[in-house]
Amino acid sequence: MIVFYNPQFSPATPILPEEEARHGIKVLRMNTGDTLHVTDGKGNMYEAEIASTDIKKCRVAIRHIHPEFGKKPYSIHLAIAPTKNADRTEWLVEKCVELGIDEISFIACERSERRVFKTDRLEKIAVAAMKQSIKAYLPHIHEVIPFRQFIEKPLDGQKFVAHLEEGRRELLQKAAIRQHSYCLLVGPEGDFSPAEIALALEKGYVPVSLGESRLRTETAGMAGCHILNLINNS
Amino acid sequence: MIVFYNPQFSPATPILPEEEARHGIKVLRMNTGDTLHVTDGKGNMYEAEIASTDIKKCRVAIRHIHPEFGKKPYSIHLAIAPTKNADRTEWLVEKCVELGIDEISFIACERSERRVFKTDRLEKIAVAAMKQSIKAYLPHIHEVIPFRQFIEKPLDGQKFVAHLEEGRRELLQKAAIRQHSYCLLVGPEGDFSPAEIALALEKGYVPVSLGESRLRTETAGMAGCHILNLINNS
Repeated sequence: MIVFYNPQFSPATPILPEEEARHGIKVLRMNTGDTLHVTDGKGNMYEAEIASTDIKKCRVAIRHIHPEFGKKPYSIHLAIAPTKNADRTEWLVEKCVELGIDEISFIACERSERRVFKTDRLEKIAVAAMKQSIKAYLPHIHEVIPFRQFIEKPLDGQKFVAHLEEGRRELLQKAAIRQHSYCLLVGPEGDFSPAEIALALEKGYVPVSLGESRLRTETAGMAGCHILNLINNS
Repeated sequence: MIVFYNPQFSPATPILPEEEARHGIKVLRMNTGDTLHVTDGKGNMYEAEIASTDIKKCRVAIRHIHPEFGKKPYSIHLAIAPTKNADRTEWLVEKCVELGIDEISFIACERSERRVFKTDRLEKIAVAAMKQSIKAYLPHIHEVIPFRQFIEKPLDGQKFVAHLEEGRRELLQKAAIRQHSYCLLVGPEGDFSPAEIALALEKGYVPVSLGESRLRTETAGMAGCHILNLINNS
Protein backbone atom coordinates (compact mmCIF):
# COMPACT_ATOMS: atom_id res chain seq x y z
CA MET A 1 0.00 0.00 0.00
CA ILE A 2 1.45 3.32 -1.12
CA VAL A 3 0.34 6.60 0.39
CA PHE A 4 0.69 9.99 -1.32
CA TYR A 5 0.48 13.31 0.47
CA ASN A 6 -1.22 16.53 -0.50
CA PRO A 7 -2.20 18.92 2.30
CA GLN A 8 -4.62 20.65 -0.13
CA PHE A 9 -6.25 17.44 -1.35
CA SER A 10 -10.06 17.40 -1.29
CA PRO A 11 -12.94 16.04 -3.40
CA ALA A 12 -13.01 19.47 -5.08
CA THR A 13 -9.28 19.40 -5.91
CA PRO A 14 -8.26 15.74 -6.35
CA ILE A 15 -4.78 16.54 -7.64
CA LEU A 16 -1.34 15.15 -6.75
CA PRO A 17 1.41 17.74 -6.27
CA GLU A 18 4.06 17.59 -8.99
CA GLU A 19 6.71 15.91 -6.81
CA GLU A 20 4.28 13.21 -5.68
CA ALA A 21 2.97 12.73 -9.23
CA ARG A 22 6.53 12.32 -10.56
CA HIS A 23 7.22 9.67 -7.93
CA GLY A 24 4.03 7.79 -8.80
CA ILE A 25 4.15 8.05 -12.58
CA LYS A 26 7.90 8.02 -13.29
CA VAL A 27 9.42 6.04 -10.43
CA LEU A 28 6.60 3.62 -9.59
CA ARG A 29 5.37 3.61 -13.23
CA MET A 30 1.73 3.97 -12.26
CA ASN A 31 -0.81 4.26 -15.01
CA THR A 32 -4.39 5.44 -15.53
CA GLY A 33 -6.72 3.24 -13.46
CA ASP A 34 -4.03 2.18 -10.96
CA THR A 35 -5.04 2.32 -7.30
CA LEU A 36 -3.41 4.65 -4.79
CA HIS A 37 -4.07 6.22 -1.42
CA VAL A 38 -3.82 9.94 -0.73
CA THR A 39 -3.88 11.67 2.65
CA ASP A 40 -4.21 15.34 3.48
CA GLY A 41 -2.36 14.84 6.79
CA LYS A 42 -5.47 16.07 8.59
CA GLY A 43 -7.05 12.65 9.14
CA ASN A 44 -8.56 11.96 5.71
CA MET A 45 -7.34 8.92 3.80
CA TYR A 46 -8.62 8.72 0.22
CA GLU A 47 -8.77 5.54 -1.83
CA ALA A 48 -8.42 6.65 -5.41
CA GLU A 49 -7.22 5.74 -8.88
CA ILE A 50 -5.02 7.60 -11.32
CA ALA A 51 -7.21 9.56 -13.76
CA SER A 52 -4.51 11.36 -15.74
CA THR A 53 -0.77 10.76 -16.01
CA ASP A 54 0.07 14.43 -16.60
CA ILE A 55 2.77 15.07 -13.99
CA LYS A 56 2.09 18.79 -13.91
CA LYS A 57 -1.59 18.18 -13.20
CA CYS A 58 -2.07 14.60 -12.12
CA ARG A 59 -5.77 14.09 -11.42
CA VAL A 60 -7.09 11.13 -9.45
CA ALA A 61 -10.62 9.76 -9.15
CA ILE A 62 -11.72 9.30 -5.54
CA ARG A 63 -13.36 5.96 -4.81
CA HIS A 64 -13.75 6.17 -1.08
CA ILE A 65 -12.98 8.55 1.79
CA HIS A 66 -11.91 7.33 5.24
CA PRO A 67 -12.26 10.34 7.57
CA GLU A 68 -10.42 10.20 10.92
CA PHE A 69 -8.31 7.35 9.55
CA GLY A 70 -6.46 5.65 12.43
CA LYS A 71 -7.69 8.27 14.91
CA LYS A 72 -6.62 7.43 18.46
CA PRO A 73 -8.39 8.06 21.76
CA TYR A 74 -5.22 9.63 23.20
CA SER A 75 -2.66 12.17 22.11
CA ILE A 76 1.07 12.54 22.67
CA HIS A 77 2.96 15.81 22.76
CA LEU A 78 6.72 15.54 23.20
CA ALA A 79 8.64 18.66 24.24
CA ILE A 80 12.34 17.94 23.88
CA ALA A 81 15.67 19.74 23.72
CA PRO A 82 17.17 19.40 20.22
CA THR A 83 20.36 17.34 20.26
CA LYS A 84 23.76 18.85 19.51
CA ASN A 85 24.05 16.47 16.55
CA ALA A 86 21.16 17.30 14.17
CA ASP A 87 20.97 13.73 12.77
CA ARG A 88 19.85 12.47 16.15
CA THR A 89 16.90 14.86 16.24
CA GLU A 90 15.94 13.92 12.68
CA TRP A 91 16.05 10.28 13.66
CA LEU A 92 13.90 11.01 16.71
CA VAL A 93 11.21 12.65 14.57
CA GLU A 94 11.14 9.74 12.12
CA LYS A 95 10.83 7.14 14.86
CA CYS A 96 8.19 9.03 16.86
CA VAL A 97 6.04 9.46 13.75
CA GLU A 98 6.33 5.72 13.01
CA LEU A 99 5.40 4.80 16.59
CA GLY A 100 2.65 7.46 16.74
CA ILE A 101 2.87 11.07 17.92
CA ASP A 102 0.70 14.17 17.59
CA GLU A 103 2.92 17.12 18.41
CA ILE A 104 6.63 17.78 18.86
CA SER A 105 7.91 20.96 20.49
CA PHE A 106 11.57 21.89 20.76
CA ILE A 107 12.82 23.62 23.87
CA ALA A 108 16.07 25.48 24.53
CA CYS A 109 17.17 24.65 28.06
CA GLU A 110 19.84 26.05 30.37
CA ARG A 111 22.22 23.25 29.47
CA SER A 112 21.28 23.01 25.79
CA GLU A 113 24.24 23.05 23.45
CA ARG A 114 21.91 23.78 20.54
CA ARG A 115 19.35 26.59 20.67
CA VAL A 116 18.36 26.84 17.02
CA PHE A 117 17.06 24.14 14.73
CA LYS A 118 15.59 24.47 11.25
CA THR A 119 12.36 22.50 11.26
CA ASP A 120 11.73 22.40 7.48
CA ARG A 121 13.84 19.24 7.04
CA LEU A 122 12.02 17.70 10.01
CA GLU A 123 8.71 18.42 8.28
CA LYS A 124 9.86 16.42 5.24
CA ILE A 125 11.03 13.56 7.44
CA ALA A 126 7.69 13.55 9.25
CA VAL A 127 5.79 13.44 5.95
CA ALA A 128 7.89 10.52 4.68
CA ALA A 129 7.43 8.61 7.95
CA MET A 130 3.67 9.30 7.98
CA LYS A 131 3.34 7.92 4.43
CA GLN A 132 5.62 4.97 5.12
CA SER A 133 3.73 3.94 8.25
CA ILE A 134 0.31 4.51 6.60
CA LYS A 135 -1.01 7.29 8.79
CA ALA A 136 -3.31 10.17 7.92
CA TYR A 137 -2.39 12.70 10.60
CA LEU A 138 0.77 14.75 10.13
CA PRO A 139 2.14 15.70 13.55
CA HIS A 140 2.60 19.37 14.37
CA ILE A 141 6.27 20.27 14.69
CA HIS A 142 7.09 23.55 16.37
CA GLU A 143 10.17 25.76 16.20
CA VAL A 144 12.53 25.94 19.20
CA ILE A 145 11.36 28.21 22.02
CA PRO A 146 12.94 28.79 25.45
CA PHE A 147 12.02 26.25 28.13
CA ARG A 148 10.67 29.01 30.35
CA GLN A 149 8.31 30.12 27.60
CA PHE A 150 7.10 26.57 26.87
CA ILE A 151 6.42 25.79 30.53
CA GLU A 152 3.97 28.72 30.78
CA LYS A 153 1.69 27.22 28.11
CA PRO A 154 -1.63 26.00 29.41
CA LEU A 155 -1.94 22.32 28.41
CA ASP A 156 -4.73 19.84 28.97
CA GLY A 157 -4.16 16.31 30.19
CA GLN A 158 -1.28 14.67 31.99
CA LYS A 159 2.04 16.49 32.09
CA PHE A 160 5.31 14.66 32.77
CA VAL A 161 8.92 15.65 33.15
CA ALA A 162 11.55 12.92 32.62
CA HIS A 163 14.75 13.83 34.46
CA LEU A 164 17.74 12.12 36.07
CA GLU A 165 18.08 14.15 39.28
CA GLU A 166 17.58 12.56 42.68
CA GLY A 167 14.05 12.39 44.06
CA ARG A 168 10.93 10.30 43.82
CA ARG A 169 9.99 9.45 40.25
CA GLU A 170 7.38 6.99 39.13
CA LEU A 171 7.84 4.89 35.98
CA LEU A 172 6.07 6.60 33.08
CA GLN A 173 4.14 3.42 32.26
CA LYS A 174 2.72 3.46 35.82
CA ALA A 175 2.02 7.19 36.00
CA ALA A 176 0.22 7.53 32.66
CA ILE A 177 -3.53 6.91 32.54
CA ARG A 178 -4.90 5.32 29.36
CA GLN A 179 -6.84 7.41 26.84
CA HIS A 180 -5.54 10.79 27.95
CA SER A 181 -3.67 13.68 26.43
CA TYR A 182 -0.02 13.58 27.45
CA CYS A 183 2.79 16.09 27.36
CA LEU A 184 6.28 14.74 28.12
CA LEU A 185 9.30 16.96 28.73
CA VAL A 186 12.76 15.56 27.91
CA GLY A 187 15.89 17.59 28.59
CA PRO A 188 19.20 18.08 26.78
CA GLU A 189 22.37 15.92 26.97
CA GLY A 190 23.26 17.40 30.38
CA ASP A 191 19.68 17.03 31.72
CA PHE A 192 17.39 19.80 32.95
CA SER A 193 18.89 22.10 35.59
CA PRO A 194 17.52 21.81 39.15
CA ALA A 195 15.83 25.21 38.65
CA GLU A 196 14.09 23.97 35.49
CA ILE A 197 12.91 20.81 37.25
CA ALA A 198 11.59 22.87 40.19
CA LEU A 199 9.72 25.13 37.76
CA ALA A 200 8.22 22.16 35.92
CA LEU A 201 6.99 20.64 39.20
CA GLU A 202 5.52 24.00 40.21
CA LYS A 203 3.62 24.06 36.90
CA GLY A 204 2.11 20.65 37.59
CA TYR A 205 4.48 18.39 35.65
CA VAL A 206 4.85 14.99 37.34
CA PRO A 207 8.43 13.66 37.57
CA VAL A 208 8.80 10.32 35.80
CA SER A 209 11.48 7.76 34.99
CA LEU A 210 11.73 6.00 31.63
CA GLY A 211 13.46 2.96 33.14
CA GLU A 212 16.79 1.91 34.57
CA SER A 213 19.03 2.61 31.58
CA ARG A 214 20.75 5.93 31.10
CA LEU A 215 19.45 6.96 27.69
CA ARG A 216 20.60 9.60 25.24
CA THR A 217 18.21 12.52 24.76
CA GLU A 218 16.74 11.25 21.50
CA THR A 219 16.44 7.69 22.83
CA ALA A 220 14.62 9.00 25.90
CA GLY A 221 12.18 10.97 23.73
CA MET A 222 11.52 7.95 21.54
CA ALA A 223 11.18 5.60 24.55
CA GLY A 224 8.68 7.96 26.21
CA CYS A 225 6.61 8.13 23.03
CA HIS A 226 6.71 4.34 22.68
CA ILE A 227 5.67 3.77 26.32
CA LEU A 228 2.64 6.08 25.96
CA ASN A 229 1.57 4.26 22.81
CA LEU A 230 2.09 0.85 24.43
CA ILE A 231 -0.02 1.48 27.53
CA ASN A 232 -2.86 2.47 25.19
CA ASN A 233 -2.51 -0.67 23.09
CA SER A 234 -2.38 -3.30 25.83
CA MET B 1 30.41 9.15 35.28
CA ILE B 2 32.80 8.09 32.53
CA VAL B 3 33.30 4.45 31.65
CA PHE B 4 36.38 3.07 29.88
CA TYR B 5 36.54 -0.29 28.16
CA ASN B 6 39.21 -2.92 28.13
CA PRO B 7 38.17 -6.50 27.39
CA GLN B 8 41.49 -7.69 28.91
CA PHE B 9 41.18 -5.61 32.09
CA SER B 10 41.71 -7.49 35.35
CA PRO B 11 43.29 -6.91 38.78
CA ALA B 12 46.46 -8.52 37.35
CA THR B 13 46.54 -6.21 34.29
CA PRO B 14 44.93 -2.90 35.32
CA ILE B 15 45.89 -1.09 32.12
CA LEU B 16 43.92 1.15 29.78
CA PRO B 17 44.34 0.43 26.07
CA GLU B 18 46.18 3.22 24.22
CA GLU B 19 43.08 4.63 22.53
CA GLU B 20 41.15 4.76 25.79
CA ALA B 21 44.14 6.24 27.63
CA ARG B 22 44.53 8.96 24.98
CA HIS B 23 40.85 9.87 25.36
CA GLY B 24 41.16 10.07 29.15
CA ILE B 25 44.50 11.86 29.43
CA LYS B 26 44.51 14.08 26.33
CA VAL B 27 40.84 14.81 25.64
CA LEU B 28 39.36 14.70 29.14
CA ARG B 29 42.66 15.92 30.70
CA MET B 30 42.57 13.38 33.51
CA ASN B 31 45.46 13.30 35.91
CA THR B 32 47.04 10.95 38.46
CA GLY B 33 44.56 10.32 41.26
CA ASP B 34 41.46 11.13 39.14
CA THR B 35 38.56 8.70 39.44
CA LEU B 36 37.34 6.58 36.55
CA HIS B 37 35.35 3.44 35.85
CA VAL B 38 36.56 0.59 33.69
CA THR B 39 34.54 -2.36 32.43
CA ASP B 40 35.69 -5.54 30.75
CA GLY B 41 32.32 -5.93 28.98
CA LYS B 42 31.90 -9.26 30.79
CA GLY B 43 29.97 -7.87 33.76
CA ASN B 44 32.81 -6.42 35.87
CA MET B 45 32.74 -2.69 36.61
CA TYR B 46 35.90 -1.40 38.28
CA GLU B 47 36.09 1.81 40.27
CA ALA B 48 39.65 3.01 39.90
CA GLU B 49 41.97 5.98 39.81
CA ILE B 50 44.62 6.99 37.31
CA ALA B 51 48.03 5.75 38.53
CA SER B 52 50.18 6.81 35.59
CA THR B 53 49.53 9.22 32.73
CA ASP B 54 51.71 7.34 30.25
CA ILE B 55 49.39 6.89 27.27
CA LYS B 56 51.31 3.87 25.99
CA LYS B 57 50.96 2.14 29.33
CA CYS B 58 48.33 3.90 31.40
CA ARG B 59 48.06 2.08 34.72
CA VAL B 60 45.10 2.54 37.07
CA ALA B 61 44.73 1.60 40.74
CA ILE B 62 41.59 -0.44 41.41
CA ARG B 63 39.57 0.72 44.41
CA HIS B 64 36.55 -1.47 44.12
CA ILE B 65 35.15 -4.22 41.89
CA HIS B 66 31.44 -4.56 41.13
CA PRO B 67 31.00 -8.03 39.60
CA GLU B 68 27.77 -8.72 37.65
CA PHE B 69 27.20 -4.96 37.46
CA GLY B 70 23.60 -4.29 36.35
CA LYS B 71 22.96 -7.99 35.77
CA LYS B 72 19.35 -8.63 34.80
CA PRO B 73 17.11 -11.61 35.54
CA TYR B 74 16.16 -11.88 31.87
CA SER B 75 17.94 -11.88 28.54
CA ILE B 76 17.06 -10.58 25.09
CA HIS B 77 18.29 -12.03 21.83
CA LEU B 78 17.19 -10.21 18.68
CA ALA B 79 17.55 -12.01 15.33
CA ILE B 80 16.91 -9.51 12.58
CA ALA B 81 17.42 -9.05 8.84
CA PRO B 82 20.00 -6.31 8.19
CA THR B 83 18.44 -3.28 6.50
CA LYS B 84 19.32 -2.29 2.91
CA ASN B 85 20.62 1.02 4.26
CA ALA B 86 23.52 0.18 6.62
CA ASP B 87 22.99 3.32 8.76
CA ARG B 88 19.66 1.99 9.91
CA THR B 89 21.22 -1.22 11.22
CA GLU B 90 23.97 0.74 12.97
CA TRP B 91 21.32 2.90 14.58
CA LEU B 92 19.39 -0.20 15.66
CA VAL B 93 22.45 -1.62 17.42
CA GLU B 94 23.13 1.64 19.26
CA LYS B 95 19.55 1.97 20.47
CA CYS B 96 19.19 -1.68 21.51
CA VAL B 97 22.39 -1.48 23.55
CA GLU B 98 21.15 1.68 25.28
CA LEU B 99 17.78 0.09 26.05
CA GLY B 100 19.38 -3.23 27.05
CA ILE B 101 20.12 -6.27 24.91
CA ASP B 102 22.27 -9.39 25.26
CA GLU B 103 22.66 -10.80 21.78
CA ILE B 104 22.02 -9.68 18.21
CA SER B 105 21.99 -12.11 15.31
CA PHE B 106 21.65 -11.12 11.68
CA ILE B 107 19.64 -13.29 9.33
CA ALA B 108 19.47 -13.35 5.54
CA CYS B 109 15.88 -13.98 4.54
CA GLU B 110 14.16 -14.82 1.27
CA ARG B 111 13.19 -11.20 0.71
CA SER B 112 16.37 -9.66 2.14
CA GLU B 113 17.91 -7.03 -0.11
CA ARG B 114 21.12 -7.26 1.91
CA ARG B 115 22.82 -10.56 2.67
CA VAL B 116 26.22 -9.40 3.88
CA PHE B 117 27.03 -6.97 6.65
CA LYS B 118 30.41 -6.19 8.19
CA THR B 119 29.95 -6.39 11.94
CA ASP B 120 33.23 -4.73 13.03
CA ARG B 121 31.72 -1.23 12.87
CA LEU B 122 28.72 -2.55 14.80
CA GLU B 123 31.08 -3.81 17.50
CA LYS B 124 32.50 -0.29 17.94
CA ILE B 125 29.03 1.23 18.06
CA ALA B 126 28.00 -1.32 20.69
CA VAL B 127 31.09 -0.53 22.82
CA ALA B 128 30.38 3.23 22.65
CA ALA B 129 26.72 2.72 23.55
CA MET B 130 27.63 0.36 26.42
CA LYS B 131 30.02 2.96 27.87
CA GLN B 132 27.63 5.84 27.31
CA SER B 133 24.72 4.06 29.01
CA ILE B 134 26.95 2.80 31.87
CA LYS B 135 26.66 -0.91 31.33
CA ALA B 136 29.19 -3.67 31.98
CA TYR B 137 28.01 -6.36 29.57
CA LEU B 138 28.92 -6.03 25.91
CA PRO B 139 26.25 -7.74 23.81
CA HIS B 140 27.28 -10.53 21.45
CA ILE B 141 26.88 -9.53 17.82
CA HIS B 142 26.93 -12.30 15.24
CA GLU B 143 27.66 -12.27 11.53
CA VAL B 144 24.83 -12.73 9.03
CA ILE B 145 23.71 -16.33 8.52
CA PRO B 146 20.82 -17.69 6.44
CA PHE B 147 17.42 -17.67 8.16
CA ARG B 148 17.10 -21.43 7.61
CA GLN B 149 20.37 -21.99 9.44
CA PHE B 150 19.42 -19.72 12.35
CA ILE B 151 16.03 -21.33 12.85
CA GLU B 152 17.64 -24.73 13.45
CA LYS B 153 19.56 -23.46 16.49
CA PRO B 154 18.36 -24.88 19.78
CA LEU B 155 17.47 -21.91 22.02
CA ASP B 156 16.19 -21.79 25.57
CA GLY B 157 13.31 -19.63 26.70
CA GLN B 158 10.49 -17.94 24.82
CA LYS B 159 10.78 -17.65 21.05
CA PHE B 160 8.79 -15.08 19.09
CA VAL B 161 8.40 -14.18 15.44
CA ALA B 162 7.08 -10.68 14.62
CA HIS B 163 5.46 -10.67 11.19
CA LEU B 164 2.77 -8.79 9.31
CA GLU B 165 0.97 -11.68 7.58
CA GLU B 166 -2.64 -12.50 8.36
CA GLY B 167 -3.34 -14.81 11.28
CA ARG B 168 -3.66 -14.75 15.02
CA ARG B 169 -0.89 -12.80 16.70
CA GLU B 170 -0.74 -11.76 20.33
CA LEU B 171 0.83 -8.47 21.40
CA LEU B 172 4.44 -9.12 22.43
CA GLN B 173 3.87 -7.40 25.79
CA LYS B 174 1.09 -9.90 26.53
CA ALA B 175 2.87 -12.98 25.22
CA ALA B 176 6.18 -12.46 27.02
CA ILE B 177 6.58 -13.79 30.56
CA ARG B 178 8.72 -11.76 32.94
CA GLN B 179 12.20 -12.93 33.87
CA HIS B 180 12.71 -15.23 30.93
CA SER B 181 15.15 -15.61 28.08
CA TYR B 182 13.64 -14.26 24.88
CA CYS B 183 14.51 -14.62 21.23
CA LEU B 184 12.65 -12.33 18.83
CA LEU B 185 12.76 -12.72 15.04
CA VAL B 186 12.23 -9.60 12.89
CA GLY B 187 12.14 -9.84 9.10
CA PRO B 188 13.41 -7.65 6.26
CA GLU B 189 11.69 -4.65 4.61
CA GLY B 190 9.35 -6.97 2.66
CA ASP B 191 8.60 -9.16 5.73
CA PHE B 192 9.26 -12.86 6.14
CA SER B 193 7.92 -15.09 3.37
CA PRO B 194 4.94 -17.33 4.23
CA ALA B 195 7.33 -20.34 4.04
CA GLU B 196 9.68 -18.72 6.56
CA ILE B 197 6.81 -17.95 8.92
CA ALA B 198 5.51 -21.52 8.62
CA LEU B 199 9.00 -22.84 9.42
CA ALA B 200 9.34 -20.54 12.44
CA LEU B 201 5.98 -21.72 13.82
CA GLU B 202 7.01 -25.33 13.25
CA LYS B 203 10.17 -24.65 15.28
CA GLY B 204 8.14 -23.32 18.20
CA TYR B 205 8.30 -19.57 17.54
CA VAL B 206 5.12 -17.82 18.71
CA PRO B 207 3.70 -15.21 16.30
CA VAL B 208 3.50 -11.76 17.88
CA SER B 209 2.51 -8.22 16.98
CA LEU B 210 4.48 -5.16 18.08
CA GLY B 211 1.42 -2.90 17.92
CA GLU B 212 -0.84 -1.21 15.40
CA SER B 213 1.71 0.88 13.54
CA ARG B 214 3.49 -0.39 10.47
CA LEU B 215 7.13 -0.07 11.51
CA ARG B 216 10.34 -0.16 9.52
CA THR B 217 12.57 -3.17 10.16
CA GLU B 218 14.96 -1.36 12.49
CA THR B 219 12.11 0.35 14.35
CA ALA B 220 10.42 -3.02 14.84
CA GLY B 221 13.63 -4.53 16.24
CA MET B 222 14.12 -1.62 18.60
CA ALA B 223 10.45 -1.61 19.66
CA GLY B 224 10.57 -5.34 20.43
CA CYS B 225 13.72 -4.91 22.51
CA HIS B 226 12.12 -1.99 24.38
CA ILE B 227 8.90 -3.91 25.07
CA LEU B 228 10.82 -6.87 26.55
CA ASN B 229 12.79 -4.53 28.81
CA LEU B 230 9.64 -2.65 29.85
CA ILE B 231 7.63 -5.68 30.92
CA ASN B 232 10.56 -6.63 33.17
CA ASN B 233 10.75 -3.17 34.72
CA SER B 234 7.09 -2.61 35.57
